[in-house]
Amino acid sequence: MKYVYKFSEGKGDMRELLGGKGANLAEMVNLGLPVPQGFTVTTEACTRYYEDGEFVAPDIRDQVLEYLTWLEQNSGKVFGGADNPLLVSVRSGSRASMPGMMDTILNLGMNDAVADGMAKLTGNPRFVYDSYRRFIMMLSDVVMELPRHDFELIIDKMKDKRGVKLDTELDAEDMKELVVLFKAYYKDKKGTEFPQEPREQLMASIAAVFRSWNNNRAIVYRRENDIPSDWGTAVNVQAMVFGNMGDDSGTGVAFSRNPSTGEAKLYGEFLMNAQGEDVVAGIRTPQTIDQLRDVMPQCYKQFVDIVSKLEKHYKDMQDMEFTIERGQLFMLQTRNGKRTAQAALRIALEMVKDGIWSKEDALMKVDPKQLDTLLHPQFDPAALKAAKIVASGLPASPGAACGRVFFTAAAAKTEAANGPVLLVRKETSPEDIEGMIAAQGILTARGGMTSHAAVVARGMGTCCVAGCGDCIIHEDQGYMTVGGTRVNAGDFMSIDGSTGHIYIENIPTAEAEITGDFNTFMTWADEVRTMKVRTNADTPQDAAQAVSFGAEGIGLTRTEHMFFEADRIGPMREMILSASEEERRKALDKLLPMQVKDFEGIFTAMGARPVTIRLLDPPLHEFLPQKADDIKALAKDMGVSEQVLTDRIDSLHEFNPMMGHRGCRLAVSYPEIAEMQARAIIRAAVNVKRATGIDLVPEIMIPLIGDVNEMKFVKGIVQKAAEEELAGFGLKYMIGTMIEIPRAALIADEIAKEAEFFSFGTNDLTQMTFGFSRDDAGAFLDDYYKRKIYENDPFARLDQTGVGQLVKLAVELGRKGRPGIKLGICGEHGGDPSSVEFCFNAGLDYVSCSPFRVPIARLAAAQAKIKSKS
Amino acid sequence: MKYVYKFSEGKGDMRELLGGKGANLAEMVNLGLPVPQGFTVTTEACTRYYEDGEFVAPDIRDQVLEYLTWLEQNSGKVFGGADNPLLVSVRSGSRASMPGMMDTILNLGMNDAVADGMAKLTGNPRFVYDSYRRFIMMLSDVVMELPRHDFELIIDKMKDKRGVKLDTELDAEDMKELVVLFKAYYKDKKGTEFPQEPREQLMASIAAVFRSWNNNRAIVYRRENDIPSDWGTAVNVQAMVFGNMGDDSGTGVAFSRNPSTGEAKLYGEFLMNAQGEDVVAGIRTPQTIDQLRDVMPQCYKQFVDIVSKLEKHYKDMQDMEFTIERGQLFMLQTRNGKRTAQAALRIALEMVKDGIWSKEDALMKVDPKQLDTLLHPQFDPAALKAAKIVASGLPASPGAACGRVFFTAAAAKTEAANGPVLLVRKETSPEDIEGMIAAQGILTARGGMTSHAAVVARGMGTCCVAGCGDCIIHEDQGYMTVGGTRVNAGDFMSIDGSTGHIYIENIPTAEAEITGDFNTFMTWADEVRTMKVRTNADTPQDAAQAVSFGAEGIGLTRTEHMFFEADRIGPMREMILSASEEERRKALDKLLPMQVKDFEGIFTAMGARPVTIRLLDPPLHEFLPQKADDIKALAKDMGVSEQVLTDRIDSLHEFNPMMGHRGCRLAVSYPEIAEMQARAIIRAAVNVKRATGIDLVPEIMIPLIGDVNEMKFVKGIVQKAAEEELAGFGLKYMIGTMIEIPRAALIADEIAKEAEFFSFGTNDLTQMTFGFSRDDAGAFLDDYYKRKIYENDPFARLDQTGVGQLVKLAVELGRKGRPGIKLGICGEHGGDPSSVEFCFNAGLDYVSCSPFRVPIARLAAAQAKIKSKS
Repeated sequence: MKYVYKFSEGKGDMRELLGGKGANLAEMVNLGLPVPQGFTVTTEACTRYYEDGEFVAPDIRDQVLEYLTWLEQNSGKVFGGADNPLLVSVRSGSRASMPGMMDTILNLGMNDAVADGMAKLTGNPRFVYDSYRRFIMMLSDVVMELPRHDFELIIDKMKDKRGVKLDTELDAEDMKELVVLFKAYYKDKKGTEFPQEPREQLMASIAAVFRSWNNNRAIVYRRENDIPSDWGTAVNVQAMVFGNMGDDSGTGVAFSRNPSTGEAKLYGEFLMNAQGEDVVAGIRTPQTIDQLRDVMPQCYKQFVDIVSKLEKHYKDMQDMEFTIERGQLFMLQTRNGKRTAQAALRIALEMVKDGIWSKEDALMKVDPKQLDTLLHPQFDPAALKAAKIVASGLPASPGAACGRVFFTAAAAKTEAANGPVLLVRKETSPEDIEGMIAAQGILTARGGMTSHAAVVARGMGTCCVAGCGDCIIHEDQGYMTVGGTRVNAGDFMSIDGSTGHIYIENIPTAEAEITGDFNTFMTWADEVRTMKVRTNADTPQDAAQAVSFGAEGIGLTRTEHMFFEADRIGPMREMILSASEEERRKALDKLLPMQVKDFEGIFTAMGARPVTIRLLDPPLHEFLPQKADDIKALAKDMGVSEQVLTDRIDSLHEFNPMMGHRGCRLAVSYPEIAEMQARAIIRAAVNVKRATGIDLVPEIMIPLIGDVNEMKFVKGIVQKAAEEELAGFGLKYMIGTMIEIPRAALIADEIAKEAEFFSFGTNDLTQMTFGFSRDDAGAFLDDYYKRKIYENDPFARLDQTGVGQLVKLAVELGRKGRPGIKLGICGEHGGDPSSVEFCFNAGLDYVSCSPFRVPIARLAAAQAKIKSKS
Repeated sequence: MKYVYKFSEGKGDMRELLGGKGANLAEMVNLGLPVPQGFTVTTEACTRYYEDGEFVAPDIRDQVLEYLTWLEQNSGKVFGGADNPLLVSVRSGSRASMPGMMDTILNLGMNDAVADGMAKLTGNPRFVYDSYRRFIMMLSDVVMELPRHDFELIIDKMKDKRGVKLDTELDAEDMKELVVLFKAYYKDKKGTEFPQEPREQLMASIAAVFRSWNNNRAIVYRRENDIPSDWGTAVNVQAMVFGNMGDDSGTGVAFSRNPSTGEAKLYGEFLMNAQGEDVVAGIRTPQTIDQLRDVMPQCYKQFVDIVSKLEKHYKDMQDMEFTIERGQLFMLQTRNGKRTAQAALRIALEMVKDGIWSKEDALMKVDPKQLDTLLHPQFDPAALKAAKIVASGLPASPGAACGRVFFTAAAAKTEAANGPVLLVRKETSPEDIEGMIAAQGILTARGGMTSHAAVVARGMGTCCVAGCGDCIIHEDQGYMTVGGTRVNAGDFMSIDGSTGHIYIENIPTAEAEITGDFNTFMTWADEVRTMKVRTNADTPQDAAQAVSFGAEGIGLTRTEHMFFEADRIGPMREMILSASEEERRKALDKLLPMQVKDFEGIFTAMGARPVTIRLLDPPLHEFLPQKADDIKALAKDMGVSEQVLTDRIDSLHEFNPMMGHRGCRLAVSYPEIAEMQARAIIRAAVNVKRATGIDLVPEIMIPLIGDVNEMKFVKGIVQKAAEEELAGFGLKYMIGTMIEIPRAALIADEIAKEAEFFSFGTNDLTQMTFGFSRDDAGAFLDDYYKRKIYENDPFARLDQTGVGQLVKLAVELGRKGRPGIKLGICGEHGGDPSSVEFCFNAGLDYVSCSPFRVPIARLAAAQAKIKSKS
C-alpha cells in the first residue's frame, strides 16, 4: 500500500487521497509554479491510524522516512544536519476545505545543533532563533498539549522587560533567550527535555495532525458542513521557505477576487519579515496586496501572473498563500476561495457572462444554505469579532438580532414600542404568538430544531436560538442566568440564529438586502429544476412572502394556529369543553365563518397555485390554559365552576401529547370538527372561484393516518361535507394524507387507494422512527455528537438510512396503490439541501418549506437535477 | 351465485358458507336425525348485503322465496295460509359460535288470519295466540327497534289484573287480548299497523339478522374473541315446531357432558309447554334433563341415543337444543359446547384416555386464554349475575377482586391489615408499588393495557382494570364518582380484571385452584412445542412463581423497579442530582452492592435457566418527586435548597417522556450507570457460579437501540466493565439489544453484527409504529372500535400488518447480519395466543411474558406448532 506521494506524483483530481491542499500543491507543481518540494501522507494513512487504535504503523513510518530521504537529496539539505539543515512544515489537508480547523507545525527539524548551524550558515541568528521559538510553541501546542497562550505570556514578559511593543522589535539575543525560556518552561511542565531528534518530531507531528481530525472544533465544523467523519485528513510535509529571513522576505494571503463583494480584483494582504501565522495573528497590521507592487515590484508582477493562471486553471476564485524568501516567490497553497453569499452571486454572474462557467456550473458553485444570509439581518462583522459568546443553543432560525430581553409575550409586545426586543422563554407555546411577532429574535431554553419556537420563527423569518440549556430562566421573577451572569428584563442581549451563539451585549446588525443578482441567479435555478417548491404558510401574509421568494404553491397550511387568535380561542374552548355533539356543533358554527375567511385570504394570496390545507392536528388540551390563574379566569368567562373546568382539563391531560389524541384521531372522535373544516375550505374555495374566476383546486390533507380504515372514515366525512357545500358547483378538490407514522409508510399501498396525494411529514416520521421527541432530544443529542454516534441532527437533515428507507418504501407502495399519486414533503427537511436532493432522487413531485427557505430549496432542487444528469 | 342452501344440500364442513348452526343442521339432517326442514341463507349473502349498502339484493330475495316455496311443498303447509299455515324460525349463525350475540325470531309467518286458521286447526287457541304475541314481541324488538321490555310491561300489567304470577296461568282469551294490546302498542309507537304480509316479515327479518352482525355486543364479543368482522353471519330459516302446544310438548337445552365440571354425564334442563326463550328467561324454573325420563320416557330414550350419536360423530362435547311437539322429538341445534377451564381439562384428559382424541387433538381443543381463570380468583357466578355493572375499563390483568377502596398507596397499605382493599388511582407510578402489592385489585382511570398499573399487576398476578375513564377520581379529597354515584374511601367495590367491569358492591370471590389435570395437560403442551417460553420477572419471588408455572428462563428483568425500594431511592436520587461524573460515581458505588444482591437472588432462583437483564430504561425524572411537599421533604433530606432541587427537576422535565432521555440514551450520557449495572450483573453471576457451580450465562440487554453506533458505544462500556469484573474468571455472558424502535428494525442487519441476541420490545415498537402512546390511547381507542377502524387493541394483540412487518423484517435482517442470532420477544404480546402463534411463524426462539401468562404461552406455542404441521 502506497501511503506517501511526492507532490510531483500527485494531481489536482486526487483530493480524496491527498486532501485538497495536497492535490492543489501537486497541481501547482505540475503547472510549473514555484512551490517548495515536499510530499503528502494520504488520507488512507489517517484512516489506518484510527483503525490501528491511534498508532502510526511501521510501514507508514518507513515510507515517510524514505520520502524524507528523497526530500533531503532533492534539496541538497540534511534533516537535522547542522551544516545545511532541512526544515519542513507539517500541515493538515482534508478532502473538503476546513479552514483553521486542524493543525499546522512550521520549522520542524529544528533543534539546538541545527539552530547553531543555521545561525552560522545564514549569518542571521535572529531569524534562526525566531524560527526555533516558533517551532517550540507550535510543537508544544499541537503535539504536547501545552497551550500556545502560555508561551505568549513569556514573550509578553520579555517585551515588557525590553520596553517594546512588537515581536519584530526583539533582537537576536532576545530570541535566543526566548528559546531558552521556552525549553525550560517545557521541561518544567512535561518533565522531559524538549524533543531534539527531528525524525521523532516529524512522526509525532504527523500523528498529531491525524488526531486533530477529531478535535472538537473539527467535529462541530463537519456537522455544520455535512462532511463525513470517516474521510480523514492527509498530511503535507514540505520543505520550509522563510518569510522571516529579513526585509527582503515576507509572507501573505490573497484572493483572486474580493471574497466579500465578489469584485473581480486581486484582494489580500502581506507582512514583510514574518511567517504565515503572524498575518493571521493580527499583532502587526499587514499591508494590502497592492502595496506589494511598491515594495517588491518583481515579485508582485510574478504573483499577479500566477494568480491569473491559477484562476483560469481552476476556473474559480482562488485563495492563495505565498512566501517570499530573500526576494524569491514561493506558492504555499491555492484553493477555491470561501466567499459571502453576495460575492458568490456576483462571481457566478460574471463567470457566466465571461463564458467561463455555464449556468449549470454557476448553480453548482453556490451553497444553497448560504442564501439564507441574503434574506436575514446579520451582525456587523467587526463588532461580532470583538463580542463574547456566553452560551450556544441550536441555530433554529437564521439571522441576527439584538434587543432588550423580556420573559413574557405580553412584556415583549408592550416594550416593542420602545425599541427592539428579544423574547426569552423556557419554551414557547401557541399563546406566545403575539410576543413572537413583536420580537426581533426568540431565545428558548428547551426544544429542538422543530420545536414550536423554531417552526414559527422560521415561518416568520425571525431569528431564533432554541434549546439553549445553559440559560436558567425564571419567567415569573423576570430574570435569567447564563454562564454565571444574571440578565434582567430590559437588559440587552444579542443572538445569532445562524450559529446559535448568544451574547450579553448590544451588537449592531445590518439589514438584509435582496439584489438583482439574486433574482437572476434564482431564475437560472428555476430553468433547470424539475421538482416543484412549495411553502408552509398559515396566513395570507406568509403566503404572499413565500410567493415573493418563488413558492409555487402551499404544501402545508396548519389550521390550528388560526384558533389562537383572540376572537377564535373563545369558541374553540367552548367547543372543547362541550359535553355533547350538539353543544360542540354550536361552537363549531361560530368558528365556521372565521375559518372561511382564513381560507379565502390564503386562496386569494395564492391564486391558481395549489394549496394544501391540513385538518386540525394538535391535541385539544393545547388550546386550554394550564395555570391556576388562567383557569380561574376562563371558568369565569365561560360561566362554569373551576372544578368542572379543572376536571375537564385534567381528563384531557396526556403523558405523551406527541403520541396522543391528535391528528385524524380527533376527527374519529369528533367528526363534526373535520366536517366544519371541510365545509370552510370548500366554501372559501367556491367564494374565491366565484369572485375571481380562478380555477383553484384545494387539497385537503388528513394528518396522522396510520390505518386505511382511518383514512376511509375521515375521508368519508370530508367528502360528504364537501359535496353538500358544493351542491353541484363545479370545483375540483383533492383529499390526501400525510405520511408521518411508520405504519402508514409500511401499508402505503393500501392507503394510496384512498388518498389522492401523500405529503411526507418527516418531522413526526423522524420522531416515531427514531423513537425520540424533537422537544426532548436536545437533552441528549449533544452527547450523541460528542460520542460520534450521530453526525447530524436528524430533525435538520433527513436520516436517509432509516427514515429515508420508509420514505422510499412509501413512494414505491404509494405509486403501486395509485399510479400517478401526487407526492410531496412538508416536514422541515423540505428546506435542507441534502434532504431536498434525497427527495428529488426518491421521486417526489415537490418539497415544501418555510417561506424563507424557499430560495434554498429552489437552488437545492436545481443542483439535485444537475447532479442526476451526470 | 347460489345464496341459499337446503339443510340437505349442506354438510358439516361448510361452516364458512353456512355458519356453524347451518352446517350442523345440515349434518344432523345427513345423519338422519329428526330435524325440522329448512334452508340457510349464506354468509356470502350477508357480505353482499353490506357491499350493497345494507340492502338485500333482488337475486338473494328471489332465491329465498324460491326455497320458501320448496319448504311449503315439502311440509304440505302454506306460508301465510289460514288453513294449514307454515310458520318458520329465523336464526343467525356465524362461522364462529357467538352465543346470544345476534338475533332470533320465532313463529314468523303469523298474522291475524293465520292465527284464526291455526286456532281452528289445532283447537288450541291459547297456544296460537301465545305464539302470535311472542312473534309480535320478537319482530318488534329485532326488526323494528321497539324494545322487548315494553311488551313485558304489558304482560306484567295483565298478570297483575288477573292476579296471577306465571305466563302459563294466562288463558287463551288473555293471550288473544295481549295480541290486541301488543298490536295497538306497535301502531301507537310506529305509526303503522303491525306487518301482516309474511313474505315481507321474512325479508325484513333476514335483513335484521344481517344487521345484528354489527350490533354493539357482537362487535365487543368479536374483539374479545379475535373473530374478524368481515366473516358475516348466515341466516337459518326453519319450519317451526312447537313446544308450547300443550302438556305433551316442551323444549330444552342439554350438554353431552357437564360444562362446569367436565363430568361425562348428560346435563341440561327443559320446560313443558314452552318455547325456547322461556328456558333462558328464567320465569319458570326448568326441570333437569333427568326428569324428562319420568315425564316422557320414550322421548328421553330417543334423545339420549341422539346425544351419544352426536358426541361420537363430532368427537366433542355437544351443546344441543330440542323441542318436543305433541310427543315428537325434534333436534333444533347442536354445536361443540362451551365449557369452563376445569371442564375443558377434564374432558380433554378423558377423551384422550378413551382414545377419542390424540394428545394433539386435546391441545387444540382448549383455548389458551381460558387457562387464566384457573390461576386467578373468580366471582361467584350466581352473585355476579345479580350484580350491576356501573362502568367498564380495560381488562388489564385477569381475576376478580372485592374490597374497600383507597385512593393512595399509603392508605391501601395501612388498611390492608383490616381486610381486602382495592387501590384506586388516576394512574399508578412506581412509587405506588407497596400499595399495589397490598391490594387485592387495582383500578385506574387512565392508561392502557400496557400502562404501569397493567404491567405490574400482571407481573404480580393481581387483578387490574385500567383506563376506566368514567371514574372521576379525586385522590386528594379521598373520593371518586362513577356513573353518577359517589364512592368514598373505605366503601366496597368489586372489579373484574378479566372483563373490565366494575361494581359498587361486595361480590364474593372464589379462590384459584390448580389441579393435577392442569399439570398433566401442560406436560403434553411442552412435549409438542418447539418454541421456548420465558417470563418477565423483576424479583426472585416473581421468578420462582414463573418457574412453578413452567417458565424456562427470564426474557426480561427490569432493573428500574429495584430502585424504588426504600433503601435505594435515596442513593438513586443522589445519583440523578449529581453535578459531576465523580459525584454520580459515588452514589452509584452505594447502589452497586444492592444491585449485586438483586441479581444474585434472581440468578439463584433461576439456576441454569437463561436470564436476560435489561439496563436502566425509564427517564430519570421518574425517580424524582413532582409535588411541592415531596420536593420540600427531599430537599431537606439531601441538604440542598428547594430552588436547586426544583431547577434540576425542571431541567429534567420532558414533553414526551416515552420518547425522551431514556434507555440506552442514559448510558450514552452517563456511561457510569451502565458500567455499574454491568459490574453488578457479572459480579452476581460470578458469586452464584462460585457458590453453586451452576454454569449460568447472563444475558445483558441494552434497551432502545436505534443506531448501530449507539450499540457499539454502550456495548463497549458493558464489555469493558464485564471483563474487569471477571478478571479472567471463566463465565460466559451475552450482550444483546431490544428491537423496539422502528429504525432498529429497519437496520437490524447492521445492529446484529454487534448484538448477540434480539428481544422484540413490541410494546414500544407498537407505540412508535402506530405513533400513539399506550398511556394515552385509552382516550380514543373506544371511538376506533365504535367506528370499526380497529378490531383489536394493538397493545393486547400484535398488529401483524404493520408492527409484524417490522418484526419479520428484523428477523430476516438479523439472521443475515449474524447467522444463529438468538431471537425472542419480551413485549406484553408474548402472553397473547395469536401473537405467540405469529412469533412462532416468524421464527423466534422464545416468547417471554408475565408469570401468570406462562401457561397460556406454553399452550399457544404448542398449538402454533401443531397448526404449522398441517
